[in-house]
Amino acid sequence: MTRTAVFGSGSWGTAFAAILADAGGEVVLHARRAEVAEAINSDHVNAAYLPELTLPETVSATTDPAAAARGAEMIVLAIPAQTVRANLGEWGHHLPTGAPVVSLMKGIELGTGLRMSEVIQQVADVSRDQVVVVSGPNLSREIAAKQPAASVVACSDLGTAEQVAQACASAYFRPYTQTDVVGAEVGGAVKNVIALAVGMAQGLGYGDNTKATIITRGLAETARLGAALGADPATLMGLAGVGDLIATCMSPLSRNHSFGVNLGQGMSVEEVVAITSQTAEGVKSCRSVLDLAATHGVDMPICAGVTAVVENVMGVAELGDELMARPHKHERH
Amino acid sequence: MTRTAVFGSGSWGTAFAAILADAGGEVVLHARRAEVAEAINSDHVNAAYLPELTLPETVSATTDPAAAARGAEMIVLAIPAQTVRANLGEWGHHLPTGAPVVSLMKGIELGTGLRMSEVIQQVADVSRDQVVVVSGPNLSREIAAKQPAASVVACSDLGTAEQVAQACASAYFRPYTQTDVVGAEVGGAVKNVIALAVGMAQGLGYGDNTKATIITRGLAETARLGAALGADPATLMGLAGVGDLIATCMSPLSRNHSFGVNLGQGMSVEEVVAITSQTAEGVKSCRSVLDLAATHGVDMPICAGVTAVVENVMGVAELGDELMARPHKHERH
Repeated sequence: MTRTAVFGSGSWGTAFAAILADAGGEVVLHARRAEVAEAINSDHVNAAYLPELTLPETVSATTDPAAAARGAEMIVLAIPAQTVRANLGEWGHHLPTGAPVVSLMKGIELGTGLRMSEVIQQVADVSRDQVVVVSGPNLSREIAAKQPAASVVACSDLGTAEQVAQACASAYFRPYTQTDVVGAEVGGAVKNVIALAVGMAQGLGYGDNTKATIITRGLAETARLGAALGADPATLMGLAGVGDLIATCMSPLSRNHSFGVNLGQGMSVEEVVAITSQTAEGVKSCRSVLDLAATHGVDMPICAGVTAVVENVMGVAELGDELMARPHKHERH
Repeated sequence: MTRTAVFGSGSWGTAFAAILADAGGEVVLHARRAEVAEAINSDHVNAAYLPELTLPETVSATTDPAAAARGAEMIVLAIPAQTVRANLGEWGHHLPTGAPVVSLMKGIELGTGLRMSEVIQQVADVSRDQVVVVSGPNLSREIAAKQPAASVVACSDLGTAEQVAQACASAYFRPYTQTDVVGAEVGGAVKNVIALAVGMAQGLGYGDNTKATIITRGLAETARLGAALGADPATLMGLAGVGDLIATCMSPLSRNHSFGVNLGQGMSVEEVVAITSQTAEGVKSCRSVLDLAATHGVDMPICAGVTAVVENVMGVAELGDELMARPHKHERH
């Protein structure tokens, strides 16, 4: 039985702990708040973030990072993207040497333009072949309901990817291995920004043609950024690209999508932040995605528009007009 | 002012006539039923298929194919896929020589395995460089509401594609030119089958992870078929591939999706056919897609499952179990 330490007890960290346990593993969940850890240990429920899920008996929790990491054969990180450096700086030295480190984070680090796997390698003592990215159409609440879903498990070392895939495969969770870590991470980072744009369109009253068009053109700009960073375009056509993008953009359960809907309906960024409980990664990451694209000379008109709205430089209605007014062209410009 | 004859007065033919007129053209719509043609001429409404749209004054209708085709500089075909050969056999000789022929049809001909553009070339006296395929996330009722959408305009001759793109570009309809006709047609033909699968999943009670997973794996099998037929995989990543697939699979306005939902909720194929007014192309085309795939040795498990359900060989619930139970593998198998 694989023993895994999951750092981060938000909805995705908690749902992934259940996946690992349902696949036959033993899981220790690290929570920052004592009441979260206590409720998991006593009631098998994370009432704050995923109240509808009763966790298997093989999931326990602790607030002590050293205790969580002790004896773990696998590490899972599920913390907000912009806090990874600070968190690993605090407790990264407890991670066991040589164990696979699975990143569930989606985003690009502000200031450095680094992908999450790069931050992990830089801050913790972890080699490239140990870092694994899991990414796909995986809305936590549907995973918690054990609805069928699939995901990419990517690592530069295929054997490590297969080991992690084995540890999370179950009747309702179907892993597909991959070696294109860059593609998996770029898809995950940009999709939250595109989901904001789709949410805005929905908030403005537009339907599925418009949303599908934004998703498709968003995928095109994601693929352009991916290609510039060395990703295989085919990865963006897969579960970690279009799959995750669809789930995030279409679901009312997606925080980024909901954030965009509120903006589209006329709320200010500050007003939406005030009513949003968990992080909407796209709001925090859009600037870093755009800066990274600029560094590589990649044109990302949808991300640029979303960033302008988030930074209060452009109104939501103007964004739509501007995107439709761009010159007509060949689909692959 | 370009004069276009649109053959087929279903919802998409009617909406596309409005697009052409809003882009500054003059349109004659061919309708088979006299009352449809009369209502369009007197009230500017196609009450049977798109009642919410008031057509521009520059759209008129006739039941006479020769009159519709006379003087047309462009022909648009928007008739059910499996009737193209019979229809063109009946009135194809009226089509003006040398005019671009735009296909709005989506499907593979039963028995021959031919794409729609191939049927057109075979039956009418039309060269390859004249046949144009328009395909994208274009739900008729949203187009009728003038919601922003984009589409691919594909022709082996880029100049002809640009000419057609020019004729349909407007504030709410954004064409992207393409030369990959095969990719545009394969995307359109298979998406209706995938939409049936997504509808079934929804009817069974599954959410957006499951639907996004089916769409993504459906896209993978579409891309495999496309590659075998000579399509560029990148086309399937675009508006005529993933874009159309998303709109068709997510929208309650899609007939194929609704058909699948009814199957998932327990109705028999015969019962759903009885309550469905217009053609659900996926039901008619799934067998031809599967036969074409078999001819080229392409594995299409979702299309195979849908065909088995449509042909009453497998139950809807079994289909889901069978797809999740396939062996785990690399994402690009």
